[in-house]
Amino acid sequence: MTEGRAVEELVVGVLGGTGPQGRGLAVRLAAAGQRILLGSRDADRAAEVAAEVATRASAAAGGVEVSVQGGSNADVAGAADLVIVAVPYAGHAELLAELATPLAGKIVVDCVVPMGFDELGAYVLDVPEGSATQQAAALLPDSHVVGAFHHLSARLLEDLSHPTIDGDVMVVGDDRASMDTVQALAGRLPGMRGIYSGRLRNARQVEALTINLVSVNRRYKVHAGIRVTDV
Amino acid sequence: MTEGRAVEELVVGVLGGTGPQGRGLAVRLAAAGQRILLGSRDADRAAEVAAEVATRASAAAGGVEVSVQGGSNADVAGAADLVIVAVPYAGHAELLAELATPLAGKIVVDCVVPMGFDELGAYVLDVPEGSATQQAAALLPDSHVVGAFHHLSARLLEDLSHPTIDGDVMVVGDDRASMDTVQALAGRLPGMRGIYSGRLRNARQVEALTINLVSVNRRYKVHAGIRVTDV
Repeated sequence: MTEGRAVEELVVGVLGGTGPQGRGLAVRLAAAGQRILLGSRDADRAAEVAAEVATRASAAAGGVEVSVQGGSNADVAGAADLVIVAVPYAGHAELLAELATPLAGKIVVDCVVPMGFDELGAYVLDVPEGSATQQAAALLPDSHVVGAFHHLSARLLEDLSHPTIDGDVMVVGDDRASMDTVQALAGRLPGMRGIYSGRLRNARQVEALTINLVSVNRRYKVHAGIRVTDV
Repeated sequence: MTEGRAVEELVVGVLGGTGPQGRGLAVRLAAAGQRILLGSRDADRAAEVAAEVATRASAAAGGVEVSVQGGSNADVAGAADLVIVAVPYAGHAELLAELATPLAGKIVVDCVVPMGFDELGAYVLDVPEGSATQQAAALLPDSHVVGAFHHLSARLLEDLSHPTIDGDVMVVGDDRASMDTVQALAGRLPGMRGIYSGRLRNARQVEALTINLVSVNRRYKVHAGIRVTDV
């Protein structure tokens, strides 16, 4: 579905696109010229948010037309070339199990962080498969599952008054061609790079490091990200 | 033992100081003016490496005298004010169990990464306590255990021809005063900062991210580290 096509030509679907992380990725990618399909459980809500995202992305891009459309998660999974999964972990397994058929043959980028909160702050939720990304791979045996976009602050993604974001996107997976595509997609976010960061079996700590960034944010009153040095 | 004392005054012990990570930390800290006790199973070997580290650190510091002495791990644990644990994970639990008494009341900084290698590369070793740092805390109930210094390339630490290193030190722990001291110690490494990065229960992913950096290093032929952005 994506083979041989330049990343700029791909229609990117965002499941959970009405949540902060999904919406933030959608608006930044749309402003960079990517065609976006924004998915939600509620197709009407997705259409509303898509219209609002399109308006903001177009303004940030200097008034050029952008393409952002909304739909149900299932419709988006079927119509997009590459799909980003940005739903809460609580609904992750159920949603992906339902969408295995429309997602077959596609690159699926998981950015879900299994995270709980208690009186001591944030902590890692144990995932039977090891990580959300590995869970996605187990549920989507016919898709190319890649983990990425975990460490990006939704607040910074949404704040288009800052044209660039200081940070990298760590990309994990077992399929090099799919990872190359996701790294190129990450590189379309101004200021960011997609960095090859190892195999699927090493996804857990990439996801979970987001929890440490939550602690950094609380302590320093910032929106922390990660830059990989010497690359 | 460290209360009320400036970090510059502390004698820093490095257990496993003849290994690449320990030796790299020792030479950089010594060059920055920190008094160092370098420990090894073999006290004679520790003394040899300490003399070599002192010579290099002094040269890097423009010829000023530096203080680096070698000894057995047990002697170093007893004599130092603050102790960095830089031994291979295979010997981690056994060594710390033996040294609980001399380490009591002290800040113990664990930088050990539980890492295995197979034909697919590096992977995370499961630690019954959750992480090496939590294992240290369980074995040293009377010490102040902090996790730090995982993401620093031994090669870059050792290469004093580059006066600074581009990267941060993520510091995890449950005792804020000890973490402040370790953050200040990290800040003595030129170019680096010690960043508060959450509680002990979130140590695992900080340790394990080192494994992803091994993949980055192999892919890009670099010595990768981590910079926390927006701080």
